[in-house]
Amino acid sequence: MDEFEKTKRTKLVRAAQRGHYDHKTVHAILDEALICHVGTVIDGKPAVIPTAHWRQDNRLYIHGSKASRMLRAAQGSEVCIAVSLMDGLVMARSGFHHSINYRSVIVYGVADLVEDAAEKLDALELFMEKIAPGRWPELRPATDKEIKSTTVLAVDLKEVSAKIRTGPPVDDEPDYALPIWAGVVPTRLTLGEPIADPRLAEGVEIPAYLLPEAS
Amino acid sequence: MDEFEKTKRTKLVRAAQRGHYDHKTVHAILDEALICHVGTVIDGKPAVIPTAHWRQDNRLYIHGSKASRMLRAAQGSEVCIAVSLMDGLVMARSGFHHSINYRSVIVYGVADLVEDAAEKLDALELFMEKIAPGRWPELRPATDKEIKSTTVLAVDLKEVSAKIRTGPPVDDEPDYALPIWAGVVPTRLTLGEPIADPRLAEGVEIPAYLLPEAS
Repeated sequence: MDEFEKTKRTKLVRAAQRGHYDHKTVHAILDEALICHVGTVIDGKPAVIPTAHWRQDNRLYIHGSKASRMLRAAQGSEVCIAVSLMDGLVMARSGFHHSINYRSVIVYGVADLVEDAAEKLDALELFMEKIAPGRWPELRPATDKEIKSTTVLAVDLKEVSAKIRTGPPVDDEPDYALPIWAGVVPTRLTLGEPIADPRLAEGVEIPAYLLPEAS
Repeated sequence: MDEFEKTKRTKLVRAAQRGHYDHKTVHAILDEALICHVGTVIDGKPAVIPTAHWRQDNRLYIHGSKASRMLRAAQGSEVCIAVSLMDGLVMARSGFHHSINYRSVIVYGVADLVEDAAEKLDALELFMEKIAPGRWPELRPATDKEIKSTTVLAVDLKEVSAKIRTGPPVDDEPDYALPIWAGVVPTRLTLGEPIADPRLAEGVEIPAYLLPEAS
């Protein structure tokens, strides 16, 4: 199984059993999550911005307007990208042992500018495939102006770790006898019924890839 | 209406109409979201970690193990805390105008250590009230050792902005006539049926505040 090499920054010290470094686990979390949080350093101070992300092999992509302050701070610089999926609220018998079930990935790396127009367009198509597989060929094609005004950055997945907590609370042994309800309240991101644009052209049907049963 | 003063870092430049600076809007987003992403600078490089947060008045709290690297980096230092709620996938008629409906808050500030044991305990009670109102008095009380091994940090809400996108896609005018489905696929975090701990003491019923209809 391919694994990312642990570094000082990615090796879990506490709760080391929650750490995962294999490509498969990391990729699955990155692919399921729609948004990430990108950390940069601006004038020596931390800045964090949420944005969408996508992945191909061991390359993680983000994009946005050429005018975005975050992208300008990230371009060619060290970034830290965090992706988190919340799976449940862990209710223990003491406040101290309450927790959250989650799957997260932390990526450290330099954000490279994707300069080649063809590579950029391929990357954007890949992003659409993640969100709505099959939608890209149906869309009005991208114009050169649109591609030029979009910045795409890529971070090579090298210094990466995943962290996962699952299962019931872990309480202090004597506390298990207490008459306190304990367990997990599952949480998940759900997609609702699509809402058509009020300006939808007449006769346009909702595509199959957006129907709730497709997800 | 009380407002946060705009600063160079919090004033939106692009899509300025999406910016909100009133306390009420900021508080509502912080209170609805369960997790935030905390950005710090470690050895001059960005680091981002997901964690739970809660709020009282204009003070935002995070907590964790005294041994946490993130909390040690944050304590007494400049942090950036981002909170994001995803409300929908915005499907436009061109790839370029696809977007996400969301509500987010970005907080810049210094993370102060909450040193006083009584203030710390009050803050932790407040956190439980956010997650499961009414649960705190039912729990096995916190021990001094637990309180001592928990770090609670607070950031004063001063340099803060919210950003909100709602509604259908905004397409190029000629594209509205195209026979392409456009609209919004709503997304939301949902709570599932609570799963009891396999080691639950006999006869313990699920508390009313955890039943799905209560949320």
